Amino acid sequence: MPRYRDLTHTARPSDAPRYFEPKNPIRTTDPGALQVLKMAQESKIETVFDRAVAQQPQCAFGYKGICCRICLAGPCRVKTEEGPGSRGVCGASAYTIVSRNIVRMIAGGAASHSEHARHVLHTAHAMLEGHAPDYEIKSPAKLQKLAQDLGIDTVNRTDKEILHDVVEVGYADFGRYQDTPLAFLNSFMTEGRRKKFLQTNIMPTAIDRSVCEITAQTAMGVDNDPVNIIFHGLKCCLADLGGEYIGTKLSDVMFGVPQPIVSEANLGVINPKMVNIAVHGHNPVLSEMVVAAARAMTAEAVAAGAEGVNVVGICCTGNELLMRQGVYLATSSASQEMAILTGALEAMVVDIQCIYPSVQTLAQCYHTKVITTEGIMKTPNAQHVAFNTATAMADARKLVEIAIEAFKKRDPKKICIPDERHKLVAGFSLEAITDILSKVNPDRPISVLTDAILNGQLKGVVLMAGCNNLKRPQDEGHIAVLKELVKNDVFVIATGCSAGAIAKFGLMNSAAVDTYAGEGLKSFIKMLEAANPQLSTGLPLVFHVGSCVDNSRGADLAVAMANELGVDIPKVPFAASAPEAMHEKAVAIGSWCVTLGFPTQVGAMPPVEGSDLVYGVTTQIAHDVFGGNFILEVDPIVGAQKLLNALEYRTWKLNVHRKTAEKFETALAQGW
Amino acid sequence: MPRYRDLTHTARPSDAPRYFEPKNPIRTTDPGALQVLKMAQESKIETVFDRAVAQQPQCAFGYKGICCRICLAGPCRVKTEEGPGSRGVCGASAYTIVSRNIVRMIAGGAASHSEHARHVLHTAHAMLEGHAPDYEIKSPAKLQKLAQDLGIDTVNRTDKEILHDVVEVGYADFGRYQDTPLAFLNSFMTEGRRKKFLQTNIMPTAIDRSVCEITAQTAMGVDNDPVNIIFHGLKCCLADLGGEYIGTKLSDVMFGVPQPIVSEANLGVINPKMVNIAVHGHNPVLSEMVVAAARAMTAEAVAAGAEGVNVVGICCTGNELLMRQGVYLATSSASQEMAILTGALEAMVVDIQCIYPSVQTLAQCYHTKVITTEGIMKTPNAQHVAFNTATAMADARKLVEIAIEAFKKRDPKKICIPDERHKLVAGFSLEAITDILSKVNPDRPISVLTDAILNGQLKGVVLMAGCNNLKRPQDEGHIAVLKELVKNDVFVIATGCSAGAIAKFGLMNSAAVDTYAGEGLKSFIKMLEAANPQLSTGLPLVFHVGSCVDNSRGADLAVAMANELGVDIPKVPFAASAPEAMHEKAVAIGSWCVTLGFPTQVGAMPPVEGSDLVYGVTTQIAHDVFGGNFILEVDPIVGAQKLLNALEYRTWKLNVHRKTAEKFETALAQGW
Repeated sequence: MPRYRDLTHTARPSDAPRYFEPKNPIRTTDPGALQVLKMAQESKIETVFDRAVAQQPQCAFGYKGICCRICLAGPCRVKTEEGPGSRGVCGASAYTIVSRNIVRMIAGGAASHSEHARHVLHTAHAMLEGHAPDYEIKSPAKLQKLAQDLGIDTVNRTDKEILHDVVEVGYADFGRYQDTPLAFLNSFMTEGRRKKFLQTNIMPTAIDRSVCEITAQTAMGVDNDPVNIIFHGLKCCLADLGGEYIGTKLSDVMFGVPQPIVSEANLGVINPKMVNIAVHGHNPVLSEMVVAAARAMTAEAVAAGAEGVNVVGICCTGNELLMRQGVYLATSSASQEMAILTGALEAMVVDIQCIYPSVQTLAQCYHTKVITTEGIMKTPNAQHVAFNTATAMADARKLVEIAIEAFKKRDPKKICIPDERHKLVAGFSLEAITDILSKVNPDRPISVLTDAILNGQLKGVVLMAGCNNLKRPQDEGHIAVLKELVKNDVFVIATGCSAGAIAKFGLMNSAAVDTYAGEGLKSFIKMLEAANPQLSTGLPLVFHVGSCVDNSRGADLAVAMANELGVDIPKVPFAASAPEAMHEKAVAIGSWCVTLGFPTQVGAMPPVEGSDLVYGVTTQIAHDVFGGNFILEVDPIVGAQKLLNALEYRTWKLNVHRKTAEKFETALAQGW
Repeated sequence: MPRYRDLTHTARPSDAPRYFEPKNPIRTTDPGALQVLKMAQESKIETVFDRAVAQQPQCAFGYKGICCRICLAGPCRVKTEEGPGSRGVCGASAYTIVSRNIVRMIAGGAASHSEHARHVLHTAHAMLEGHAPDYEIKSPAKLQKLAQDLGIDTVNRTDKEILHDVVEVGYADFGRYQDTPLAFLNSFMTEGRRKKFLQTNIMPTAIDRSVCEITAQTAMGVDNDPVNIIFHGLKCCLADLGGEYIGTKLSDVMFGVPQPIVSEANLGVINPKMVNIAVHGHNPVLSEMVVAAARAMTAEAVAAGAEGVNVVGICCTGNELLMRQGVYLATSSASQEMAILTGALEAMVVDIQCIYPSVQTLAQCYHTKVITTEGIMKTPNAQHVAFNTATAMADARKLVEIAIEAFKKRDPKKICIPDERHKLVAGFSLEAITDILSKVNPDRPISVLTDAILNGQLKGVVLMAGCNNLKRPQDEGHIAVLKELVKNDVFVIATGCSAGAIAKFGLMNSAAVDTYAGEGLKSFIKMLEAANPQLSTGLPLVFHVGSCVDNSRGADLAVAMANELGVDIPKVPFAASAPEAMHEKAVAIGSWCVTLGFPTQVGAMPPVEGSDLVYGVTTQIAHDVFGGNFILEVDPIVGAQKLLNALEYRTWKLNVHRKTAEKFETALAQGW
């Protein structure tokens, strides 16, 4: 029997405060950011932390999701429990308004991930057409596997021929009009999930179409049935996952499959003796070229008086480069401004997503050049260098040149680089994890993980993901959830700014295993280390699986575990956590995590508290239908404990079912 | 010299009040609705008019567009002029927040129109595949013309072969990934507009992609340059126009090209002796079948004690059926609930868009059945009859049967049908208008209209469009603008709920010409009547061109006038007005009106007042770049006068340019 019953899907959240009082704007716990913030506050430089305070108190209507601005008759607010003030002008109830708002966030997330994927797809296409000479197929092995998974013939065909077909499938997944399933989703799901998606009519057919459909469905005077709206929202979040699969898998083909790699994190990686370029955003298509250009331009940097060019990463562009190139991770989302305030950043090259408009405002007080590169991401007053895959390396060199030129104007008096940098080991693609496990069991590598769970050495797996949200001090949630999980023997994989937080705090290395891991987790990791003497890096407390698009790797691991265990995903002791969810992308990711069958803890309240019905659907009904559910819990310790309950319950149930099946010599029940 | 200089694009709006005080909720001027509303208020039945009052005062942050709910760190509001409270947590300024919000409304509109178009396209496709036996090609002539416009070969090919290629182009316009222009936009524009769209980088390539792109572009941490955001928004609004073209043109092919037709409007068309079915929404695909089924089921109705089945229309489904079948128009958007409150409505069959969630709440107090039919539009407690084009007529019969069954439960004591119904003439497709004009000048029919403008008989053409918005009493704006325009000799074409308002007030017929038209307009219409003795209907004061999707017919007329005059659209005395704009679709339509080069008056403030920069771009810079501009003016009389100024100025300038060109024997300048 588990210590706790799994009541996560019926429990209301704790009474932890949702709002914070406008007090001292020290709303980060990141030791590097804290040092720079102290200087900023003394110098009266406005940062995100000041703005978070200035926004308090935030509007409770919007916070709860009961403000509707979908047509010009509004804004409408659900002001009363009953009577005409309890509905919008059109008659939309709280449940309609809340569900429309939240699924439009899913659409925003799906559109975002998909634009990223579309760019990668275009690049692959351009490469095949001979228009992107600086790109290549870095991982033919991944291409072979991907093509086979998609049902594309690989026998006696060149890599380019195979990739051509893969790209065609990718494009079809964006724009097909036939009602056939999204290939880049369908091909990577368990049999059980495929059936479930078809049964519940949420299997998407095309990514762009899903975004359009849900947008149209939630327009004024269309769907007002919250359950129907939410189910179509789930269709859209699955389209989001399809986009993420395209993004991750094609990036691996073109930029290489990540392998364990050592690097360092936090603002101390900015090197006062070098030309520092921060690449910030999400897309590796440009930033991979910047790294290559920087490595080739040491001479130019030396000529300008520096020791070389130091590319550092911020947010998920940082994670992409960290995973494949070992590029230092300077910082994560909420502290992106701090990189400029070090006074030693020559250029911040940005692509898309999570880039604060304020970076340019701050850069104007320094020699730092903020350079936008994509047509859909510009900033007033920032320099725009249009990045083109046809001239990728030349464009990248231009960016590095701008940084080298800026270096000459650096003001040494303004330099404030914190002495905070931590060793980390990253690069854990599913291929890399499987390799490591295969040294223990070459035939069934994933069983090494699942057996450790079934026999109680590990409590399960948690995917920690996404974002900072200054409703709580930066990184506090990530670190608190993580420590609680690893103390209780959970095998943690992490992406995005959750991985960034863990790395910045020095918890993504072998030393942290000894300090923070429970006995079970510690022995498991040490066992893997012993079986992998070739890995000179040691193994970290947390396995970094990539950027937020790479949450798809988490889905892949869950599918692999389900297949290994012979059950569908909802029976696998696998959960997700987004302690500081912020972006629409996080809403989309969280939603597919639930739809895949993960208990999914979110530490920043999405705007659903305005409707008990919608709240109930996301936290309870979802569990009945899909086996996963949201655990909306802003207290990180309580959140982590609820995840532990869910994992323990699943493991207990799985063992009971397996023993029963063994006893009666029957098969394990497949369905959920 | 015109009486006024055209300063519409530099003038701030009048000081007319933006908000109304919560007073007596008699917020309609529609004489039919007023009668029912009186009963509703006496009976304490809650209607939209009560809710509009209950929502006052509305949130000024949302109203001005300076509330951001795009990520979970918010809601953020621009609270102060300067300092940290003047920006969102991420640093987004008022101009970023306002522009993101408004272009997301464009995306909502484009998605909405396009779902409608997609449905028509699917139906055509299913028909060709033999899966939609109840549909046919009603207008081979329109198909020929459409195919030729799209560059599709028509020689020695069957209608089905031609339609197959047209449908393929339509699908490609939704999902193509190549960077070639949207065919269903590009093929119908002037040469000048095509160039302008390419120069300004706003030519869309695919509809779904445009919606996704703008959604991704406006996500947290992406574009914060308001000008770039707005220009991409314009790309999306042109995709919206492409979707409207698909909707209108393919509907004409499959359901027939509208021709002048007599009908009646207002709630008095509900017949107490018949089984009354209101078809409500926007899409003709289902409702055309309901009309056919109803006409075939008189016997069943008589068996139930009625004299027959009376199909009446509401909103744009009503307009679609009015235009092609002469179906009575019961009422328009804001008074849709009144149709149920007549107590004599057996069924309200709804498809998509502008359907108040409250209709089901009210129907529960009557015998009325609200029946939803589309997968993306459901209502809690309403009956859902899934409509399938494969079984269209059978589905339609089922709907009529439900209504006949409900008739038996009608409570005669509850009947309250106002004695308000007005004769109207509708059905003015561009083909119909051209036919009428061709009786005056067979070779150059459009010159009849443009010559009348150049010689001062007419002031110009205004397209009146869209919606009710209870920020002012229903229809007050439409009727006031209309009367001012026709008094000043403007040739008015109307769509959607603007046409509905005009029809309900009895102004869409020949008698109204004598009462309201200025001398020039009156003589023009009488001249056309005299030249068209075959038209027994007489010609109305206002030409009804269709549903809101059919605003594309307005674009077609403007293009035809530009081509006739040998100039680009911005030089044509053609303007647009949406006195009571409400839906996201209206924002999309208004935006393409501006982009095409129309002065475009909007009588309900879109949320742009929170940023002087965005306000200036939409009202001034747009004029510099595209020749069209928004006239944001909530006072209908002032709004109409500003439109008159713009038209007069264009006519004056056009005459000057033409005389100069004649004098020096040069060509008219083409560019804007």
